[in-house]
Amino acid sequence: MDDRSDDHDIEVEGGIHAYERKISGILDDGSVGFQQPLLARNRKNTTSQIAIVGANTCPIESLDYEYVFVFPNFTFLLFWKTETINEIRLLGRVAFCRVIGNFLEICRYFQAFFAFAGCNLILATAAGSLCAFIAPAAAGSGIPEVKAYLNGIDAYSILAPSTLFVKIFGSIFGVAAGFVVGKEGPMVHTGACIANLLGQGGSRKYKLTWKWLRFFKNDRDRRDLITCGAAAGVAAAFRAPVGGVLFALEEAASWWRSALLWRTFFTTAVVAVVLRTLIELCRSGKCGLFGKGGLIMFDVNSGPVLYSTPDLLAVVFLGVVGGVLGGLYNYLVDIVLRTYALINERGPGFKVMLVMAVSILSSCCAFGLPWISQCTPCPIGSEGKCPSVGRSGIYKSFQCPPNHYNDLSSLLLNTNDDAIRSLFTSRSENEFQISTLAMFFVFVYCLGIITYGIAIPSGLFIPVILAGASYGRLVGRLLGPVSQLDVGLFSLLGAASFLGGTMRMTVSLCVILLELTNNLLMLPLVMLVLLISKTVADCFNKGVYDQIVTMKGLPYMEDHAEPYMRNLVAKDVVAGPLLSFSRVEKVGVIWQALKMTSHNGFPVIDEPPFTEASELCGIALRSHLLVLLQGKRFSKQKTTFGSQILRSCKARDFAKAGLGKGLKIDDLVISDEEMEMYVDLHPITNTSPYTVLETLSLAKAAILFRQLGLRHLCVVPKTPGRPPIVGILTRHDFMPEHVLGLYPHIDPLK
Amino acid sequence: MDDRSDDHDIEVEGGIHAYERKISGILDDGSVGFQQPLLARNRKNTTSQIAIVGANTCPIESLDYEYVFVFPNFTFLLFWKTETINEIRLLGRVAFCRVIGNFLEICRYFQAFFAFAGCNLILATAAGSLCAFIAPAAAGSGIPEVKAYLNGIDAYSILAPSTLFVKIFGSIFGVAAGFVVGKEGPMVHTGACIANLLGQGGSRKYKLTWKWLRFFKNDRDRRDLITCGAAAGVAAAFRAPVGGVLFALEEAASWWRSALLWRTFFTTAVVAVVLRTLIELCRSGKCGLFGKGGLIMFDVNSGPVLYSTPDLLAVVFLGVVGGVLGGLYNYLVDIVLRTYALINERGPGFKVMLVMAVSILSSCCAFGLPWISQCTPCPIGSEGKCPSVGRSGIYKSFQCPPNHYNDLSSLLLNTNDDAIRSLFTSRSENEFQISTLAMFFVFVYCLGIITYGIAIPSGLFIPVILAGASYGRLVGRLLGPVSQLDVGLFSLLGAASFLGGTMRMTVSLCVILLELTNNLLMLPLVMLVLLISKTVADCFNKGVYDQIVTMKGLPYMEDHAEPYMRNLVAKDVVAGPLLSFSRVEKVGVIWQALKMTSHNGFPVIDEPPFTEASELCGIALRSHLLVLLQGKRFSKQKTTFGSQILRSCKARDFAKAGLGKGLKIDDLVISDEEMEMYVDLHPITNTSPYTVLETLSLAKAAILFRQLGLRHLCVVPKTPGRPPIVGILTRHDFMPEHVLGLYPHIDPLK
Repeated sequence: MDDRSDDHDIEVEGGIHAYERKISGILDDGSVGFQQPLLARNRKNTTSQIAIVGANTCPIESLDYEYVFVFPNFTFLLFWKTETINEIRLLGRVAFCRVIGNFLEICRYFQAFFAFAGCNLILATAAGSLCAFIAPAAAGSGIPEVKAYLNGIDAYSILAPSTLFVKIFGSIFGVAAGFVVGKEGPMVHTGACIANLLGQGGSRKYKLTWKWLRFFKNDRDRRDLITCGAAAGVAAAFRAPVGGVLFALEEAASWWRSALLWRTFFTTAVVAVVLRTLIELCRSGKCGLFGKGGLIMFDVNSGPVLYSTPDLLAVVFLGVVGGVLGGLYNYLVDIVLRTYALINERGPGFKVMLVMAVSILSSCCAFGLPWISQCTPCPIGSEGKCPSVGRSGIYKSFQCPPNHYNDLSSLLLNTNDDAIRSLFTSRSENEFQISTLAMFFVFVYCLGIITYGIAIPSGLFIPVILAGASYGRLVGRLLGPVSQLDVGLFSLLGAASFLGGTMRMTVSLCVILLELTNNLLMLPLVMLVLLISKTVADCFNKGVYDQIVTMKGLPYMEDHAEPYMRNLVAKDVVAGPLLSFSRVEKVGVIWQALKMTSHNGFPVIDEPPFTEASELCGIALRSHLLVLLQGKRFSKQKTTFGSQILRSCKARDFAKAGLGKGLKIDDLVISDEEMEMYVDLHPITNTSPYTVLETLSLAKAAILFRQLGLRHLCVVPKTPGRPPIVGILTRHDFMPEHVLGLYPHIDPLK
Repeated sequence: MDDRSDDHDIEVEGGIHAYERKISGILDDGSVGFQQPLLARNRKNTTSQIAIVGANTCPIESLDYEYVFVFPNFTFLLFWKTETINEIRLLGRVAFCRVIGNFLEICRYFQAFFAFAGCNLILATAAGSLCAFIAPAAAGSGIPEVKAYLNGIDAYSILAPSTLFVKIFGSIFGVAAGFVVGKEGPMVHTGACIANLLGQGGSRKYKLTWKWLRFFKNDRDRRDLITCGAAAGVAAAFRAPVGGVLFALEEAASWWRSALLWRTFFTTAVVAVVLRTLIELCRSGKCGLFGKGGLIMFDVNSGPVLYSTPDLLAVVFLGVVGGVLGGLYNYLVDIVLRTYALINERGPGFKVMLVMAVSILSSCCAFGLPWISQCTPCPIGSEGKCPSVGRSGIYKSFQCPPNHYNDLSSLLLNTNDDAIRSLFTSRSENEFQISTLAMFFVFVYCLGIITYGIAIPSGLFIPVILAGASYGRLVGRLLGPVSQLDVGLFSLLGAASFLGGTMRMTVSLCVILLELTNNLLMLPLVMLVLLISKTVADCFNKGVYDQIVTMKGLPYMEDHAEPYMRNLVAKDVVAGPLLSFSRVEKVGVIWQALKMTSHNGFPVIDEPPFTEASELCGIALRSHLLVLLQGKRFSKQKTTFGSQILRSCKARDFAKAGLGKGLKIDDLVISDEEMEMYVDLHPITNTSPYTVLETLSLAKAAILFRQLGLRHLCVVPKTPGRPPIVGILTRHDFMPEHVLGLYPHIDPLK
């Protein structure tokens, strides 16, 4: 399959290279190259620039795509180049433009716009349909879902192979459709999905199973593997190996141990080496934009950074405003998500329609706004680069006369990476007009908010970095008379402040920015600005990922107990009449209990005649009970025969099954006769469960539950002469909604 | 006091500047400058170079010293310049040399050597005496002690003010005495000591108390503060703020939570900003070597790093050998420490004698070895820099003729920072001869091993980096024909491999090296080499800090349970007959119990008539019992009067006292009459202690104990009809020595 896609790639490359050669041929043989309209190349009338717009609008989006994920115990490598898709799209658009061009020569403005918006709409519809009809779980960033999974919430199909498929292609189509979305969040989710696929030993449904991948059939190793996958995602997306480790540590993982640190580090080290090698191989340009930029994507190493007190004040101001804007961003995203939820729940059709509406709006803005902006003469010494042809380059001509460029179109109608690179450069202070920066900021800020939440895979990093960088550069321009700092540095600090204000990470963002820009000297300022914006934004609301987790209703366990929990004890919240089994229990009773409830753990109690008084024996899991019932190791007498069962069972029968692949109660066929027989639960009982006394403070119980990563916590009575177990605490019993529902008079803040 | 020391500083600077002007004056007025013997400056006989040795030996050691520590909730700044000490020493030596010079002109070799060794010996004796007589806890690196403290082991005077004092001055004297020791470990310890001092609200013993510093009177906040202190230490030592956070996370802290990450990050951000400002202020040269180098100490940003397969193989080889050498280093350090322990335990006098012996040995080697090395002609274009005068500079003349330098003396008789910088540079491949590198490597490796463990504050980072860098450069020279990588890069990778092999950290070392050298492009190689060397070395033994913790007998709790613990249950290790109190207990009984035992926690049991059956009420701490007894809130009847006590007590009476400042049982004066009275323990009982059933697996109990950071864990019976508590598990009950002592037949590896 890999080979085939490669062949395909080469074919298409041949095509696009031929096309590029034609363009450069035109350019080489005379200075009139740029007035040669592509839409009607056979004619010699060379005055219209609109045709160039049509040609130039094609290669708009960020497409230097890489999917490199590597895992600790073995190296698995998926190298996906969007380039393929991109080149198909480019060819398609050119052909399309040409056809349209022959039809309507009168109103070329509209013709170009329709070509642009139409291509975008088709791609957007493809992304939206994939998402809405095949895997709704693939919509959005994916980081909140991965975070919830690593907290212990295995929600439906979050990491399923179908989600993986849609995440990859949906993200490619979404980014290519010109939405204000990034690829970083989806890459984290993709990494986690691949890790999950490997952890399950492949997918039985899609006939992809590997026997040698059976080491991860337990929760802890699978969790570790998925953490490594998320880290690999960040490492590949930002080409930032250390940043990936820290992201996994700070944002993704809920439990951390030194072994995991070392495994994540190993994973991202392999990602770094593989990336490095691939970049080296692609340096010749065979892989499109992939080889460009090297390991450091935005190299802004700009000599020593000196600063004075006014500069520091300017940076503090930047941080405060960035924090406020970030908090506002989160607030608006929350409102928009709730509004979209009302539309999306009506059905997949409505989801796709919403995607199409947003796509049309984006196209209108991206195509309409540059008309407002004025043309700027090309800087001296930039001949051949300004205005730029082809997919890369930071000077876009748009409607401007020769040797001029439109600075807003250079930001809007460009790849995201090139837009960020232009904003970060310190090359010339006047490269962007103040009005351009303001318009671009408003465009990215608003469209970023309304785009997140539609049914496409959409990362938040790129919109936030773009908005922050334009905001920072704007502030830099406005504060020019006060501060001596470079506008490029202001732009970087603006991006940092905005990231801090929305995502509320510190160390990982700091290292990611460092690895993106290779400028260690500005480290103190970046740290400062991150801290200020995070502190300011924390006064208003939670980080955007936490907010989405809450909004999705996932029962996320915080690592601290809520204050009011100190006034309650364990037995105050533990749920009502408890279902428990004897050590040797009737099959019918077990079957009935499994059928009637959806509990995952059942207490097993040792009773006379096997012990003197009734005692807590342990906890039996639903999945293990099902395996035991399926094995039909029953006995007609009520006697202990556990050792027999142990001999006939294999450990791997009880290994954790993949997502949705475990036994179900309806799969079992048990005759009436068997229902009257007995089964010894001792072999499958966890006889050493964690327990708490019923009088333990709920806050302490919550911390115990969270720190040890439990699923069931037995509550035992304090006074003698009562049944040996009071109840079982689960994750839901600690959720604020549950506790405050039981005790509505409690003040949640005390 | 600060002002006075500043005045002093300026005076001395005036002196030393005058002296330097004289030297440069001599140099300025003719090329014979270097043949002008300092020891007899009034004579015109200018042939001997030995006098120059005498002059040049003075400024030998690394003295660009900074102590900057900043804490989260307020900023406290201690800025200590060793320069003062250094300049005094320099002046003293010059005077000394001059006197000696007039006496013995015949054997100037010996005269210079005696001047050199004598100065070293005096400084070494000062450092050793401080350590041996005032604060023995200040000896060594301090990182293992901080690590143990953060794991919950509050060993005697680890963080006391006297330790702080000796750590600062002892480290200055030790580094100045020319030992192969670093200042990084001591700076981490110093940071932790200052944090502890602040956390206690100052020191009552030394009359330094601050009322406004009373927020940290609980274990958790104090632990957090000390973690921040350790991070600030690393951040200041390496000028690596992010590295500091990661060091605290990876090596120092045992418990981590997101709030702590954010606090540490804040601390190191302030360190970075303060450091940056101070460096800016010192750029004029007023602070000696402090202002040099900027925020990045060894700037080796050397353009793109390209590598091929042979290069990768060379790097893998480097990593493997580095790992083996690192493991061997740890093994030898362990042996040497055990040997020294036999000498040191005989008394402070022996300790000082050991320090003196090692000092003489170091001086002999440092002065003797350069004689073996050949003179190298100065590289073209280095006029004025080669040979170098003054404290800084990388070409030292030693016995060589004019325009030549001795490359071994440039490494041995130089500041550590300059030696590392020379090793990391790629300037010229032939700057160091292979024999020089080999000799220097053996010198640093061996002396590093025998120096660690003597009674001076001694960091391990610098010796390990020096040995690793010389080993790496040596390998680079030897593999020159095979690999195209730069020898400077080899040197850096050698240092990384050696650090990975001894300290076994990954992410933090990687980031520290990055922040030291500002070369992001070599990140993949550094990650690779760190992983390889750590993996190789882990096959042999534990990391050097873990080894020292074990050797010191500190009961460190690992974050995983030992394998054999799965075969035991809690009641198997819980200690024998338990002492417990009734809820309303006789004063005499409590007094007796506190007097007779050294337990820190006592179970309190509710008994009839207050309850129906006897129940576990909770745990009372020794310190709280002492406060209660001191308050003399007794009653003649055996009734509950807890609410009365609560009203008359203040929370701050029970706040955690500073180190060694709590009440002691002998401080209490209780009359015989009072001994017969009763006291209600309910107000001071923790009624919500964590409990485990006696049948819980010991491994699970250990994980519970470790993860929640407990001090006491109550074991309750499973079967009814027995006393409500079986015993209390403490840290010592989980130590392998204890468990294996109880069950000697258990195989520790199963």
